[in-house]
Amino acid sequence: MSLWYGWGDPANALVLPPHVAALLDQALGVRPPASPVVSLDAVRLPPSSLAPDIVAELADCVSAEHVRVGAEDRVRHTRGKSTVDLLRLRAGEADDAPDAVVLPGTHEEVEAVLQVCAEHRVAVVPYGGGTSVVGGLAPARSGFSGVVALDLGRMDRLISVDPVSRLAVFEPGVRAPAAERLLADHGFSLGHYPQSFEYASIGGFASTRSSGQFSAGYGRFDEMVAGLRVATPVGTVELGRAPRSAAGPDLRQLFLGSEGTLGVITAVTVRVHPTPAEQICEGWSFSSFADGTTALRRLAQDGPLPTMVRLSDEYETAVGSAGAGGCVAVVGYEGSSVAQVRAGAGRVLRDAGGSPIGEGVGEEWMRTRFQAPYLRDALLNAGALAETVETATFWSALPALYDAVRSSLMDALTLHGTPPIVLCHVSHVYSAGASLYLTVVCAQAADPVAQWQMAKEAANRAILDAGGTITHHHAVGTDHASGFAEEIGPLGIEALKAVKQRLDPTGILNPGVLVG
Amino acid sequence: MSLWYGWGDPANALVLPPHVAALLDQALGVRPPASPVVSLDAVRLPPSSLAPDIVAELADCVSAEHVRVGAEDRVRHTRGKSTVDLLRLRAGEADDAPDAVVLPGTHEEVEAVLQVCAEHRVAVVPYGGGTSVVGGLAPARSGFSGVVALDLGRMDRLISVDPVSRLAVFEPGVRAPAAERLLADHGFSLGHYPQSFEYASIGGFASTRSSGQFSAGYGRFDEMVAGLRVATPVGTVELGRAPRSAAGPDLRQLFLGSEGTLGVITAVTVRVHPTPAEQICEGWSFSSFADGTTALRRLAQDGPLPTMVRLSDEYETAVGSAGAGGCVAVVGYEGSSVAQVRAGAGRVLRDAGGSPIGEGVGEEWMRTRFQAPYLRDALLNAGALAETVETATFWSALPALYDAVRSSLMDALTLHGTPPIVLCHVSHVYSAGASLYLTVVCAQAADPVAQWQMAKEAANRAILDAGGTITHHHAVGTDHASGFAEEIGPLGIEALKAVKQRLDPTGILNPGVLVG
Repeated sequence: MSLWYGWGDPANALVLPPHVAALLDQALGVRPPASPVVSLDAVRLPPSSLAPDIVAELADCVSAEHVRVGAEDRVRHTRGKSTVDLLRLRAGEADDAPDAVVLPGTHEEVEAVLQVCAEHRVAVVPYGGGTSVVGGLAPARSGFSGVVALDLGRMDRLISVDPVSRLAVFEPGVRAPAAERLLADHGFSLGHYPQSFEYASIGGFASTRSSGQFSAGYGRFDEMVAGLRVATPVGTVELGRAPRSAAGPDLRQLFLGSEGTLGVITAVTVRVHPTPAEQICEGWSFSSFADGTTALRRLAQDGPLPTMVRLSDEYETAVGSAGAGGCVAVVGYEGSSVAQVRAGAGRVLRDAGGSPIGEGVGEEWMRTRFQAPYLRDALLNAGALAETVETATFWSALPALYDAVRSSLMDALTLHGTPPIVLCHVSHVYSAGASLYLTVVCAQAADPVAQWQMAKEAANRAILDAGGTITHHHAVGTDHASGFAEEIGPLGIEALKAVKQRLDPTGILNPGVLVG
Repeated sequence: MSLWYGWGDPANALVLPPHVAALLDQALGVRPPASPVVSLDAVRLPPSSLAPDIVAELADCVSAEHVRVGAEDRVRHTRGKSTVDLLRLRAGEADDAPDAVVLPGTHEEVEAVLQVCAEHRVAVVPYGGGTSVVGGLAPARSGFSGVVALDLGRMDRLISVDPVSRLAVFEPGVRAPAAERLLADHGFSLGHYPQSFEYASIGGFASTRSSGQFSAGYGRFDEMVAGLRVATPVGTVELGRAPRSAAGPDLRQLFLGSEGTLGVITAVTVRVHPTPAEQICEGWSFSSFADGTTALRRLAQDGPLPTMVRLSDEYETAVGSAGAGGCVAVVGYEGSSVAQVRAGAGRVLRDAGGSPIGEGVGEEWMRTRFQAPYLRDALLNAGALAETVETATFWSALPALYDAVRSSLMDALTLHGTPPIVLCHVSHVYSAGASLYLTVVCAQAADPVAQWQMAKEAANRAILDAGGTITHHHAVGTDHASGFAEEIGPLGIEALKAVKQRLDPTGILNPGVLVG
């Protein structure tokens, strides 16, 4: 069973490498936390506020065993996996735990639950892998008679595979590793590898517009989706009769990224590809982040584009590849024409000033690529604050965005008395632009939650002022709601609220998320 | 000046080739039309119903010279270019002409016009190239004090080019040939070549989700769009801070395909690419449509994907390439690695049973690729009925969709006493599916408008029953409004209406189009 106040299987817990421990101690002044993590028994959990008749009605929808009001179930469905979420849990704060966890087994059961909740004005938080890092599972409670986490974990089937069209239909609760196992039986793969891979679910990918490490080759999750089935409190919406259509606005794109606020996604039709014949991952070195960025841009604009590209800045390179100068890029190739694409991309990278530094770097990255959340637990245990910030913009604006966001985090935390290290990499590339993914580590202040919220606010301000999007792949949740409102403007927000008002007239779906 | 009752420059008018004329006469029983085309003077045009004070207010917005109420201006802005539109004009029917043509020069002027029209409840039909073939310019008049065509032709600037991000910002009234000329000065191309290329506009491409002949290489127009500025009666929406984002639903996708019902697009940021170094177009022959379709699917799924692919069925091949058996595909390559892609694609096509038949076929196709609307005029002149139907679905459903739509048109028109020829080609391919484009030619019945509407209704029914989308790239307009409602379902329609109600509370924007 996974760690209730952190990430993943405790058996996979990481110990900080000595050079990292030394860096924390000497460069950042990190000291062991004043208080240990509370025990699960000691978590402060308010009594469930859900009236017994509502619990009974929910049990009528999904059977009694699938309505859970026990403390551990409730704690385990409290918020998500942002650093602030974990800091609060470690301190025993579960004040916003759901009153019950409801596990529907079918689309019809989801519909029935939504109707009961609408009738009794119970807030519903659709819950897939529980991996939100943006407060996407932290609903506004005010005005509701209770909150239920709608855990989609029982809806874990691969419904069908169409090998000719290379499409698969999944229920939303299928987690990414299970999706790969189920598809492998048919000779296919999804190839969607976000850092939350171990726990994140198909429904979560769709509702948050997730992007995986191999997005250059396989696209973002929203680009993989060909069809959706959505249960709302007022009925069902089914979309997707063709890969592309001119039949009006693409309404799939209205539910993708809607974060459970417009409906509950109960089936997702996604593009799949044959299990790759081959995979190679290798390192390249550039003298500067600017040179490396230019190289990635050339690959994205003129090809051939590898399946995966990722470029660390000088700081991330220094921390990640002890002693290496310049900037390291990791480049991955998958599929049936690896040699050809690799040769072509290699020419582009070399022309742009890159030097190959071997497959060892690539293999090490592949081996550790889902470890960051385990590393964060180790950092929190050591008394450090560790969190990430991400954004994207067009290529011409990328250098200024990088400078602005990096400086905002450096300045805010330094002024706070906890000078950080800030590491960055380009994580996803497109013809017109790219994303930036920043990792921040510093000593925890006395109130680390307030400390991070202050730094995050500074970063959000910098992103918006520099013209970046408030989130490239983490989604809006509650953490980005005000930035999102600024990004799409008041009429954009009003348009979304109008849709929500129509599909969710009692406003029970993930209140407070996305549109505030 | 272009032909008011048909297509394009009269100097480019086509004469039917003898074998086509013979086919019409002998196989289809086409006879010269009973009545000639009326003269422009003889068109039955209702008096302009717009009150003088409203005309004056509109003149205050855009200056008097840009508010036109003359007969020819009104006739030339009547409906679009569907066969039914043309048949009616040829017969002198301009009952649904706009009461005035208003030509704004700036975003602010568009906003001002919308405010005047909202205040006086005047319907506004955004007008780009005027090339709609789905009744997208045929507004419902009922309940309005008048209808104005908002001709965006004066907003014809290339606003800016970002060569690093390969993005260009256009005003909506730029027509496709002008867009290419403007970009060529910067070394770039858009590469969007729908059959309406000669007249269609950037704003129209965006608002209808247009798809061009080279979509395999450059994407559909909606896939090229990175940003939008939209004027609504209640304010401005600006979208697009990054190529991709997880900041909620992608609202760009709400305005793309909205066909002027949610706002007027006043600026479009699009991806561009360097002027191609080379272009080759060649023919391939397959023994059957099924074999050819499989070949195209392999290219789309495993690559390398040419810039353009198009596969005619046996019937279209027989008519188009007199005497050729089997099915002909035209495959085009553009860019800087033509030789490599061509060699790779050639291997795939050969493996799938294709035989190369040379560049002559490709060159001839390139030379005549924008001639179809001229050919239609010639067919109408000869007394034939000629129109097109298009749809798309996933690969596994494509053969059944083809059979169903083809049969529906054959049966409906044969039962009507005018047995048609029905030709089809696959016009656009994706990893998961493809589009079908059917051309129908038969003798005109006594009431050709009713004749086609009956056939079209049969085709729409067949498309929906076979699981296809009601339109892959022609858009919804009024002709597909009921099919669209069936395709996205009542809640989908309600969601769109909710947005419209918020952004266009008086309902003046293209009433009757899209959401009925």
